Amino acid sequence: MRAIVIHAARDLRIEDRPEETPGPGQLRLRLATGGVCGSDLHYYNHGGFGAVRLREPMILGHEVSAFVEEIGPGTTGFTPGQLVAVSPSRPCGSCRFCLEGLPNQCLNMRFYGSAMPFPHIQGAFRESLVADAAQCADATGLTPGEAAMAEPLAVTLHATRRAGEMLGKRVLVTGCGPIGVLSILAARRAGAAEIVATDLSDFTLSLALRAGADRVINTGTEPDALAAYGADKGHFDVLYECTGVAAALAGGIAALRPRGVILQLGLGGDMSLPMMAITAKELDLRGSFRFHHEFATGVALMRKGLIDVKPLITHTVALDEAETAFRLASDRSQAMKAQIVFSG
Amino acid sequence: MRAIVIHAARDLRIEDRPEETPGPGQLRLRLATGGVCGSDLHYYNHGGFGAVRLREPMILGHEVSAFVEEIGPGTTGFTPGQLVAVSPSRPCGSCRFCLEGLPNQCLNMRFYGSAMPFPHIQGAFRESLVADAAQCADATGLTPGEAAMAEPLAVTLHATRRAGEMLGKRVLVTGCGPIGVLSILAARRAGAAEIVATDLSDFTLSLALRAGADRVINTGTEPDALAAYGADKGHFDVLYECTGVAAALAGGIAALRPRGVILQLGLGGDMSLPMMAITAKELDLRGSFRFHHEFATGVALMRKGLIDVKPLITHTVALDEAETAFRLASDRSQAMKAQIVFSG
Amino acid sequence: MRAIVIHAARDLRIEDRPEETPGPGQLRLRLATGGVCGSDLHYYNHGGFGAVRLREPMILGHEVSAFVEEIGPGTTGFTPGQLVAVSPSRPCGSCRFCLEGLPNQCLNMRFYGSAMPFPHIQGAFRESLVADAAQCADATGLTPGEAAMAEPLAVTLHATRRAGEMLGKRVLVTGCGPIGVLSILAARRAGAAEIVATDLSDFTLSLALRAGADRVINTGTEPDALAAYGADKGHFDVLYECTGVAAALAGGIAALRPRGVILQLGLGGDMSLPMMAITAKELDLRGSFRFHHEFATGVALMRKGLIDVKPLITHTVALDEAETAFRLASDRSQAMKAQIVFSG
Amino acid sequence: MRAIVIHAARDLRIEDRPEETPGPGQLRLRLATGGVCGSDLHYYNHGGFGAVRLREPMILGHEVSAFVEEIGPGTTGFTPGQLVAVSPSRPCGSCRFCLEGLPNQCLNMRFYGSAMPFPHIQGAFRESLVADAAQCADATGLTPGEAAMAEPLAVTLHATRRAGEMLGKRVLVTGCGPIGVLSILAARRAGAAEIVATDLSDFTLSLALRAGADRVINTGTEPDALAAYGADKGHFDVLYECTGVAAALAGGIAALRPRGVILQLGLGGDMSLPMMAITAKELDLRGSFRFHHEFATGVALMRKGLIDVKPLITHTVALDEAETAFRLASDRSQAMKAQIVFSG
Repeated sequence: MRAIVIHAARDLRIEDRPEETPGPGQLRLRLATGGVCGSDLHYYNHGGFGAVRLREPMILGHEVSAFVEEIGPGTTGFTPGQLVAVSPSRPCGSCRFCLEGLPNQCLNMRFYGSAMPFPHIQGAFRESLVADAAQCADATGLTPGEAAMAEPLAVTLHATRRAGEMLGKRVLVTGCGPIGVLSILAARRAGAAEIVATDLSDFTLSLALRAGADRVINTGTEPDALAAYGADKGHFDVLYECTGVAAALAGGIAALRPRGVILQLGLGGDMSLPMMAITAKELDLRGSFRFHHEFATGVALMRKGLIDVKPLITHTVALDEAETAFRLASDRSQAMKAQIVFSG
Repeated sequence: MRAIVIHAARDLRIEDRPEETPGPGQLRLRLATGGVCGSDLHYYNHGGFGAVRLREPMILGHEVSAFVEEIGPGTTGFTPGQLVAVSPSRPCGSCRFCLEGLPNQCLNMRFYGSAMPFPHIQGAFRESLVADAAQCADATGLTPGEAAMAEPLAVTLHATRRAGEMLGKRVLVTGCGPIGVLSILAARRAGAAEIVATDLSDFTLSLALRAGADRVINTGTEPDALAAYGADKGHFDVLYECTGVAAALAGGIAALRPRGVILQLGLGGDMSLPMMAITAKELDLRGSFRFHHEFATGVALMRKGLIDVKPLITHTVALDEAETAFRLASDRSQAMKAQIVFSG
Repeated sequence: MRAIVIHAARDLRIEDRPEETPGPGQLRLRLATGGVCGSDLHYYNHGGFGAVRLREPMILGHEVSAFVEEIGPGTTGFTPGQLVAVSPSRPCGSCRFCLEGLPNQCLNMRFYGSAMPFPHIQGAFRESLVADAAQCADATGLTPGEAAMAEPLAVTLHATRRAGEMLGKRVLVTGCGPIGVLSILAARRAGAAEIVATDLSDFTLSLALRAGADRVINTGTEPDALAAYGADKGHFDVLYECTGVAAALAGGIAALRPRGVILQLGLGGDMSLPMMAITAKELDLRGSFRFHHEFATGVALMRKGLIDVKPLITHTVALDEAETAFRLASDRSQAMKAQIVFSG
Repeated sequence: MRAIVIHAARDLRIEDRPEETPGPGQLRLRLATGGVCGSDLHYYNHGGFGAVRLREPMILGHEVSAFVEEIGPGTTGFTPGQLVAVSPSRPCGSCRFCLEGLPNQCLNMRFYGSAMPFPHIQGAFRESLVADAAQCADATGLTPGEAAMAEPLAVTLHATRRAGEMLGKRVLVTGCGPIGVLSILAARRAGAAEIVATDLSDFTLSLALRAGADRVINTGTEPDALAAYGADKGHFDVLYECTGVAAALAGGIAALRPRGVILQLGLGGDMSLPMMAITAKELDLRGSFRFHHEFATGVALMRKGLIDVKPLITHTVALDEAETAFRLASDRSQAMKAQIVFSG
């Protein structure tokens, strides 16, 4: 069984690993499709991010779909050959935060493909994967590529829930990578009435429009367009900040109305914030981290045709050419989401 | 200028009234379409509801669209011939509740076609209407019939906002008249993941399905179907109660999960409630009354194609036959929303 | 070891029961004081309430304090002789609601002295009790009587949290039994600016005043006093309804301002509600049931002198005369809380 | 009539100004006491703060109490000689934010003693002041010094309401100047169960203890004491950040539990924030700005003895020596709140 293993920055290898056997409540899965995520790219390009560094080889990947191959003892509700979306979220179910209904804050989380703890938590980019049934959402009717989008979609659904009531709201999205464009889909699904999106790439902005943005602004070629929204203390109710760049956040803050909510999704280490504006307009900057229940929600919404992620999948490559996917995913002039096909 | 005037139960007349002249900030409108609402029906069938009784002749109607005919001094943003949806909500803007951001609770509200205060507030079923510009939402691109649906749609958008965050929620709608079916549209627009609707009429249930319900239950022919949702303390997160019938509410309460929210929209006087279940499951029964900002929101969502109310408009009659619309609107075996065309 | 066992209405016996041995994570306790609660009285006077009926003998009691006698294997943080308040809330920690942070809604709850499930959950009125360490809150510095008040106090703290933000709010409490008077203490502790309380007994109202009510109204002798608060759509932000009587609830609703919150604490089976007022004023009727984390919170607040429950304890009797406590507790002209001393 | 006028940094003059006459709905007041606030100190020491600079002479002051001298035509509810606390908050009552219930965000706010708009809004440090009756809260029973504390108290009550439900919460206060110590009083009044406060001055920490903090930490002499609260993702539910210093905020963030709330009250321009911790712990950074309704709430709570601000008033000087008050107020080794007596 082959797996995609990162050893160090730019040292990506396809290696053999032994297959595992499903225990009670588990499933053995044949991987279908895996999407390359921003954190995968950080490991590939830089060997980590912030204080998180690779200290041992690690299988990458946490955006995957798969076919059921073997059903563990006592596991019910699945049939061989069924397509499932596999959640990388594996909380312990017994720590303080799990018992508060905050499983994404679990003290013992084993999230696929993460070098935060040591030993690292191995990821899901492998031809064969044993997972808990509770991680697997029925994806019948979706393409394997769509099902593999459930993970980043869940990130944006979780963030949207952090914003509270969204019906009729005016939304600004800064940064139109996959998380930004999925935020547009999530905000619209939750009832946003007006969505404006910004980026520096006309390519990603074209996908933002297709995802339902009412207006897109290329802040490189239209540097003053956003400022008009700052009149009378600001226009937008909610900002999805998906760049992690201080200048984008500052521009968004100027366009937010009093009591507006900032969902900080872009990660970029320490940032300098205009605290006077945050205080005087009584803004609300809310961190949002991963997800849990929103994974199944996203799969259900896609299956009902209520969210369509297909236009975001711009590139699909075979497992043998996995490294191509990593290179493509770094190029925002032509790629949104690059996926690797493990099997069909 | 002709108007539809109710004098007493079953005494509906078409009478002449003088035209008015628009003042500063106002518009003179030529009425396009008016929808018959449940409260109009109460005046027509019973001369009032509860303690509210007709004490003088009153022009009916508060669901209307119109064409701009004359623009008052200093009024901006409108052009002659433009289609607008006209909000019946006219709060004073200076009482305690207006200044708390609760204009629908205004102490001096002048809501079209209401016999609550005396003298009664005359309604909008008249060929010519002078309204404040602030009441008029640009409806360009909609049909006059759709624009006249903005009012009941706003009722359900307001109720939906009262429910708080809706993304991914499981929703039960009891009663599939216009408010019930619009609740389905509103809940779906706000991100509900699962919607089940009940009624006694297969006709209205067929429109509920078309509006996006995942499942419909005829509680007359399938009296036990809802009970299955009561396992493990209940299934649904939110109940839109649109019947005003105690038995429907009790059935819905049994199917709600702990901490579920009941939006009481159906009006039917005092009701006996299963307080033990409300207390033990810590349910949350929230009144919802009219709307204000949600009127413009609804028009905007319709114009963007994000909510489609057209299938609800089952009957359209000319002003001369207005009484037919009132009779049709009372028959739930064949009618959902009946509208009167004042001009085209 | 003696225990207070209810066999049927008015059939209360003091019987011998075997002592138990504490397991890992447990404590063996010598009971100090037990308070007679309204549900104990229901079993004593009526053999149950609503659909809940005694079907086998059951040890009563769930308001207790105790001294640590024996410390189970591996249990830490306790010393022999220490006074603890013992929470009757024993959720499973693994069901759907426990994992949502709603332990009081546990599907497998084993709450002391409850005939809801069968076999019934035996209560805590026994000289010797084995409890989980997690149930026991350090009560050092409190009297055993105060510590035994932690349970009803927790009920009102939980209800107060259900009301949300309380700082500066205007509060009405209908019904001044122990739960009503504890609600006054809880609302004041949470920052209520104005508290008005009603009852039919001058005795309980005198204790309401002592607990901090700004004004008390005897609705028997001043039947019209509350109505003045109904001007301009109403005065109070929050209603703690502690009578379970429809007339009291209706009077409170008339005095609540739009968007006011009703906390329904009094239990009295089905009730007829003025739905028109609830809908038109957009009131929010919230069930509140038991508690969990609020038990430890209440003990901590009492220990810091931030809540003083001592004035509520009007009667203390010895175990031998337990039945006297049940009779006293039913007489609201002279008793607030009656407690039974098991040991000193 | 004399007034305290700032002309430039360190150029404070006592000048004559004409008396004014009260119009309808107004009162002419004889000033009693005025407290020196942090923003007054910024004008005195630096001629402004951030981008806000003095551009013309301005009467300082917005923390004042006064005696009623003359009652304007039609003004009711006041008697000559009555002590009132005077709110500096004067929103327009008709802009978008006033009508949303956010008067502190008024687009046309005329807050006493502010150089933000030009012409500047003149302040309240003057022997005679004409104010709207709506600004004046009956302070009968309070000392003039206490009544003059209503303004900074309102700032912390507003911030506390921004934190939402506070009952049973664990609170950290960084920075124990007047706003920090009043935050302790406000958090305790709203039900906080545990309060820890930090500062660099043993003097201010001694007042924090007296105000009810459970523990104080001098971060100068005990630099590691706060770090212990960072175990298991953190301890505190709410942080009142009252220093405006990035290091204090970073230390507080490390001690906050997931989903904790930061109330940013200290103003210090742009700040560098540990965004990774904010995102991963899903913290909630909320700006809080001024107040409106909380002014009257604070006066009511003081009058009922529910909040005691007297220990904070460390210095009182006569009008002739006003500049002494400004110098004292800058010295945190010996002063908390310095007040100026205009009349007795």
